[in-house]
Amino acid sequence: MSSGVEGVRVIRRGKVWLVGAGPGDPGLLTVRAHELLARADVVAYDELVSAEILRIAPSAAELVAVGRRASGCRHHEARIHPLVLERALEGRDVVRLKGGDPFVFGRGGEEAEELAAARIPFEVVPGISAALGAAARAGFPLTHRECAASVTLLTAHAAQGDPHLTANITREGTLVFYMGLSRVEETCAVLVAAGRSPATPAAVVARATLPQERTIVGTIADIAQRTRDGGVEAPALLVVGDVVARRVESPPVQEPALPLARLKPEA
Amino acid sequence: MSSGVEGVRVIRRGKVWLVGAGPGDPGLLTVRAHELLARADVVAYDELVSAEILRIAPSAAELVAVGRRASGCRHHEARIHPLVLERALEGRDVVRLKGGDPFVFGRGGEEAEELAAARIPFEVVPGISAALGAAARAGFPLTHRECAASVTLLTAHAAQGDPHLTANITREGTLVFYMGLSRVEETCAVLVAAGRSPATPAAVVARATLPQERTIVGTIADIAQRTRDGGVEAPALLVVGDVVARRVESPPVQEPALPLARLKPEA
Repeated sequence: MSSGVEGVRVIRRGKVWLVGAGPGDPGLLTVRAHELLARADVVAYDELVSAEILRIAPSAAELVAVGRRASGCRHHEARIHPLVLERALEGRDVVRLKGGDPFVFGRGGEEAEELAAARIPFEVVPGISAALGAAARAGFPLTHRECAASVTLLTAHAAQGDPHLTANITREGTLVFYMGLSRVEETCAVLVAAGRSPATPAAVVARATLPQERTIVGTIADIAQRTRDGGVEAPALLVVGDVVARRVESPPVQEPALPLARLKPEA
Repeated sequence: MSSGVEGVRVIRRGKVWLVGAGPGDPGLLTVRAHELLARADVVAYDELVSAEILRIAPSAAELVAVGRRASGCRHHEARIHPLVLERALEGRDVVRLKGGDPFVFGRGGEEAEELAAARIPFEVVPGISAALGAAARAGFPLTHRECAASVTLLTAHAAQGDPHLTANITREGTLVFYMGLSRVEETCAVLVAAGRSPATPAAVVARATLPQERTIVGTIADIAQRTRDGGVEAPALLVVGDVVARRVESPPVQEPALPLARLKPEA
């Protein structure tokens, strides 16, 4: 890069867009995210972002993998990648593409704080968080007037004694855990130990919105075993609550047509 | 419409897409939602969906307002509009456009149940729920490693004695209430009565992601008064939790460029 001598060479800083890439299906990018990606100069992406989405960027764009894998481990501090700062300070605009939504377990807040500290302008573009994508595809209404007045998004890191989780598990609303598959069993054990009925409906949705999407349904007593038996692959979400039992599934599109008069709703 | 005589005239049913329209900004539609809307034959939309978004539909499309206003009142049963069923049974495809996400306080679950009961094929397209849109624009990270391990989305209907809310308000995670402005005061009162510190940071974000967006920041002790003083307009969200105090704001894009050597991060 061009180096500067203080007070002599000045460069206007670039802007960084913290962009949610959604749960995986490129059709679930927002229109705004798609536009930004399609004209990007530099794309710094999390490893969970699919190749199909990255292909939207111009072929001349610089693509750099900068994220940690969402493996459930805390690899390092949630610092913004030095390359993002470097490119912005060189005056280039950067699309920082993050899986899901930047502010829901995306550490977008931490990255935005660092950008502000470096006086680099930024803009946050929300994305479809994995819970919303998984629920829509698998057919689990996250709220339902008859059985869930709230939905809580949380991680499984907290599964062992964290007060956030403990306070969450005693109530009736829907819970969606963003987690590795290896944490399903211990998370369910904590739920039961804290008083949730073992019969509480639960589901694992793996690779939500991708062609490989898999949904396993059970209860918090057996969902870990069912998930192991099903051989599903990460990333995955654990959905807990009565809405799992209210799963809605579409009738097949190709079913034979029936006489209209029998189906028309009464006037 | 063409009427049928049982056993003589048969019509293949149309399909219904339950589509999230996002928080308001047309750029926050998903690519998929935009595609469906741009080629729609019939659009049945909630009253909260903006005219700017409806203009994406073809001029020849039939546009029908079918939703209740999100006024905080329960006008009627959450039944799917008879016109949606009628059009689908006539064989026409219908885009059922709902503000935010269909499964987060959108009653998409109830509508999907009715479609399934009528043997009408459907598909759910997730949308950016208002909480995510508001957080991105206002700069509130909904989760943050240092102060919020979870985020709960809920309504203010529950503010008076509902066990869902009571169980939620004792904990440390972020809360986002989908509500009318008239409910801010009583909701905050319930939070304080249940033990949350009156100094807990709180914000109201009104008309999130629209040009008229307004954000009022305070605490649960004073946010109701500040909101009244600010003269903000519905729809609005109430965000409660320490993340409100972690608000991130972008430096101005137009600030004078500074010497590169002073800003470049150390290697």
